[in-house]
Amino acid sequence: MLIVDKIPQAIQEMNALRHPRRIVGLVPTMGALHEGHLSLVRAARLNCDVVAASVFVNPAQFGAAEDFDHYPRNLEADAALLEKEGVALLFTADPGEMYPEGYATFVGQEEMASRLCGGSRPKHFRGVLTVVLKLFNIFRPNVAYFGQKDAQQVVMIKRMVSDLNLAVDVRTMPIIREPDGLAMSSRNVYLSSQDRRDAARLYRALCAGREALAAGEKDPGRLVETMRQVLGGGEIDYVEAVDPRTLLTPERVRDRILLTLAVRYPGARLIDNMCLNSDGTETLC
Amino acid sequence: MLIVDKIPQAIQEMNALRHPRRIVGLVPTMGALHEGHLSLVRAARLNCDVVAASVFVNPAQFGAAEDFDHYPRNLEADAALLEKEGVALLFTADPGEMYPEGYATFVGQEEMASRLCGGSRPKHFRGVLTVVLKLFNIFRPNVAYFGQKDAQQVVMIKRMVSDLNLAVDVRTMPIIREPDGLAMSSRNVYLSSQDRRDAARLYRALCAGREALAAGEKDPGRLVETMRQVLGGGEIDYVEAVDPRTLLTPERVRDRILLTLAVRYPGARLIDNMCLNSDGTETLC
Repeated sequence: MLIVDKIPQAIQEMNALRHPRRIVGLVPTMGALHEGHLSLVRAARLNCDVVAASVFVNPAQFGAAEDFDHYPRNLEADAALLEKEGVALLFTADPGEMYPEGYATFVGQEEMASRLCGGSRPKHFRGVLTVVLKLFNIFRPNVAYFGQKDAQQVVMIKRMVSDLNLAVDVRTMPIIREPDGLAMSSRNVYLSSQDRRDAARLYRALCAGREALAAGEKDPGRLVETMRQVLGGGEIDYVEAVDPRTLLTPERVRDRILLTLAVRYPGARLIDNMCLNSDGTETLC
Repeated sequence: MLIVDKIPQAIQEMNALRHPRRIVGLVPTMGALHEGHLSLVRAARLNCDVVAASVFVNPAQFGAAEDFDHYPRNLEADAALLEKEGVALLFTADPGEMYPEGYATFVGQEEMASRLCGGSRPKHFRGVLTVVLKLFNIFRPNVAYFGQKDAQQVVMIKRMVSDLNLAVDVRTMPIIREPDGLAMSSRNVYLSSQDRRDAARLYRALCAGREALAAGEKDPGRLVETMRQVLGGGEIDYVEAVDPRTLLTPERVRDRILLTLAVRYPGARLIDNMCLNSDGTETLC
């Protein structure tokens, strides 16, 4: 596995790997890799001829009061995992390589960026879309893999790809969960052991919402109420049932519905979601 | 010359024209073509193997009170001119093809977009950058041609290309002027005959600034003052002397300087500029 940390070098190496009959897959990550990330790499390996991955903790998607400085970083362990999974090229860069002095260009989706996680993280999705567009331009992948865990991110990236006429096939892979249902996240390590146990209620709340939907409940407000009851106390950032294309709450569940929530613990803010068909079966954004 | 008005068709035709040993040139325009546009096409024909052009009056770059509805349109004449110049593919589209329902993604450069023309046209450059990025993604040109006439646009597009790691070589071509010095513009037809005569003072003001610089004047404020004196009355939107990389006024002229101005006439708002080396010789942004 080649490891490069400069953009021109990444472009050059990708051009050497590229071939009209080769499908190039990209797995963009912020590192601190867990089984969720590895499931993306495995899907890419299965469906692509060349797989590139990036490990870049993107400062543009962190707010001033957020955990950029303390976000877990372990490049050596990440590189070993990616090499074992058959990644051909790993790109990792300093913030200054991606955002050099005088950097000025950002991609945004104003309305969608203000919803759900955007409510408490106002510039987050602008940072996400910008870095993803840069990575797409550097790697020019045929296929890029993202996790359903970050559902709003997936929805907005798919919207960007369509709006900006990008030739990238964005594929969403299912959430990978711990035995108690907690969605895997690089930030789970920052939970106290008590909060770690408590955090299983996020998944239980989503399951309750799914069961209510399967039992015929088509009112988004009542689905949210069901989830809130199971979720109980704690500092809830949001609990919503939205249309996964628009991120707006529909009047009734007619088509797919995204149950999504965010809860703050002292150690970490956790998010989780389920994207469901109207009969309650699981699907992906 | 092939004329296409749907994005998938443009992508398909460009893929058929593309070849590893062929240089693809793109000339994006809003139509109502004059000798300024044609100079871009001729440069593209000289330096590229395949030349594509677009004629699209981009609603996203017009403000609500601006002249989108009245912007001159003459597709038939434009197509005849482009065919004569050897353009291989002309792309023209309805606004709904470029911005379908649910469209949400825009590219911006907040600080630079608020300067110069951005002062009176707050969303203009967001619209410009977005449509240019879309056209770059649809056509994937090796080289794209823009006129020095829209200097701020060129500076911001070059900044976008660098920031977003796009593989496009942006080339700036000199302003083409009428015999009295007025920069060619699709909007000149909307000037009354008296204002058309009067408008030659824009170029005279720039010439005075250039002469002052060549004579050793390195104070941007005094260059602006010189230009304002020649410009005289009328509704001046701005007159500035800025660093062509940042669009900020430097303390002293040390390197290149962009003399740039905008004046409102009842029929049209006119812009003009000169990009100069510190010795007063002309260069391009």
